[in-house]
Amino acid sequence: MPTVDVHTHLYPPLYTSLLRSRTTVPYIFPSPTAGDRLVILPGEDTSSPTRGRPIAPSYHSISHKLSFMSRHGIDISVLSLANPWLDWLPPAEAGSVAREVNDDMDATCGQHPGKLFFFATLPLSASVEEIVAETRRVARLKYCRGVILGTSGLGNGLDDARLDGVWQALAEENLVVFLHPHYGLPGEVYGPRAGEYGHVLPLALGFPLETTIAVTRMLLSGVFERFERLQVLLAHSGGTLPFLAGRIESCILHDGHLSKEGKIEGRRKVWDVLRKNIYLDAVIYGEPGLKAAIDVSGSDRLMFGTDHPFFPPLGEDEDEEWLSVKLNSQAVQSALGGDKAHVEAVMGGNAVKILRLS
Amino acid sequence: MPTVDVHTHLYPPLYTSLLRSRTTVPYIFPSPTAGDRLVILPGEDTSSPTRGRPIAPSYHSISHKLSFMSRHGIDISVLSLANPWLDWLPPAEAGSVAREVNDDMDATCGQHPGKLFFFATLPLSASVEEIVAETRRVARLKYCRGVILGTSGLGNGLDDARLDGVWQALAEENLVVFLHPHYGLPGEVYGPRAGEYGHVLPLALGFPLETTIAVTRMLLSGVFERFERLQVLLAHSGGTLPFLAGRIESCILHDGHLSKEGKIEGRRKVWDVLRKNIYLDAVIYGEPGLKAAIDVSGSDRLMFGTDHPFFPPLGEDEDEEWLSVKLNSQAVQSALGGDKAHVEAVMGGNAVKILRLS
Repeated sequence: MPTVDVHTHLYPPLYTSLLRSRTTVPYIFPSPTAGDRLVILPGEDTSSPTRGRPIAPSYHSISHKLSFMSRHGIDISVLSLANPWLDWLPPAEAGSVAREVNDDMDATCGQHPGKLFFFATLPLSASVEEIVAETRRVARLKYCRGVILGTSGLGNGLDDARLDGVWQALAEENLVVFLHPHYGLPGEVYGPRAGEYGHVLPLALGFPLETTIAVTRMLLSGVFERFERLQVLLAHSGGTLPFLAGRIESCILHDGHLSKEGKIEGRRKVWDVLRKNIYLDAVIYGEPGLKAAIDVSGSDRLMFGTDHPFFPPLGEDEDEEWLSVKLNSQAVQSALGGDKAHVEAVMGGNAVKILRLS
Repeated sequence: MPTVDVHTHLYPPLYTSLLRSRTTVPYIFPSPTAGDRLVILPGEDTSSPTRGRPIAPSYHSISHKLSFMSRHGIDISVLSLANPWLDWLPPAEAGSVAREVNDDMDATCGQHPGKLFFFATLPLSASVEEIVAETRRVARLKYCRGVILGTSGLGNGLDDARLDGVWQALAEENLVVFLHPHYGLPGEVYGPRAGEYGHVLPLALGFPLETTIAVTRMLLSGVFERFERLQVLLAHSGGTLPFLAGRIESCILHDGHLSKEGKIEGRRKVWDVLRKNIYLDAVIYGEPGLKAAIDVSGSDRLMFGTDHPFFPPLGEDEDEEWLSVKLNSQAVQSALGGDKAHVEAVMGGNAVKILRLS
């Protein structure tokens, strides 16, 4: 049974060249002292010459990706463009850039047939018609198995009814939506000392909380009633959805407004959506969280991932085994009590089946 | 073995009379058409004559509390003032009001000896000296077993070094800190359609996410290294901390800034703090989350709670068994596989031991 990484990003040269031409977030800043710097989070956009992060070769190089894969025993990677994808493109350019980027990804995968697949990127700043057209088009690309989506949607979140045409096309084309955070939470929630903690608060909390809010808004707006076949893979084991599912369901059951509007009955329960529409990656770095993920969605809906190229070892040597990867694969082993069949399923078998990788 | 509710609030008449004299949040609004309305969340502060919520008798009446307890087989309640406590008082008044409120709570408990205990409220807008003085004073009140604390601290969060004197006094006096959310998240994270979902988003997500951010800031600022004996009871099973503990620990281990500052080694691991300094209530309305709570802190650190008077049944009849209570007690049963000794410990035994209730 192959090992499959469903959460692994790339900033292909075509994409970085777009970012190089910009001066507002997201952009690449040619630092006079520190090489090219990638600035993608609003919090990184300072005037420091070392703002953002260096663009390591692992960010854009396929040979680095393949060497990372072989070093960690990963047989298949399902690549996705890294955040913030194409959310920021001028509407008139979005459609054509998306076609270029997706064709480029498909061609990259085609150079390593059977080893690489990808989640496509949608031109979200374009018209719904263009987004739907690109959805239909990427479904026909040989190595495309889904789309990666941020939480902003058309600018107003994923509970925006204007997205219905997109959900419909995605469900009809059997494309998995890989829902991934980027925008985090407003900086003030971290308080005046956040800078002392490096990137821990926005990465450890902002990202999963953003995902949780986005998918809960989808739940509450009835997306999963309107599109019962829609399949969403939630990054980072669902943000915090598996842990909060009970509280969300209870808050719905106790809400006077929803009751008055007749919105409590007839609705699909949170537990039901988790079991039928939600896939979770196993990117959570610990056993307790992973067990909760298994409890709510089932080990048959959980898929291993690495978040490569992020969270490399802190030392200079990127060629060692990555601790971030080990924490995740160990969690899979221990959460499943070492049960071989289940471990193999989470490490790859589920992805092969769900994403049709054979 | 008695059943103990460690998460149960009261708005005593002394407190509501303070709120009645105010016109900005938090305040009580005498609606011309809808009786007295309690407005405590910024999002509730509209111009509607039905803004906020009615002050049900269950909010302030001890006889309602006792009848709720007997109806649900609860033998002992550890009362706490409801949010937003005394965070908002003018500094010059805070100390004396806190003394009055805490003495009043102690007297209330004294009227039902052995049935009622309480978490005191600190005058956080006063000077640190006054806060510490009130901490030392409440430790000597007969029925006080800890203090309830919001996430704002002195106004800059719980990672504020100016709180060190307070943490020290709390640890020395063996008072448990019941950390409870109130401020939620900035409204924009819920998007333009949040109003359609009643109070679900701020209550189901805002509250637990606020708690998670607050306690993670405590962790990162070294509170638990400086005060190894400090004991913190986290509301709502830790917000989302049990689920995110692995990601937080991994983000610390991979943070370049923390590494450069020498802050990764020597630190206590998140897992260690969870096992030695964190208590969790069992207010999470579902088995998967509760199992994660048990996994990280141990069933010996978990204590049943109800969040009364919030989440009453939606029907008119508050005298039935509350669904919100049943969801939590059922989760305790199922998460512990019905193991009688462990269930009894979580339902009361742990609280008796930890809070010295016998």
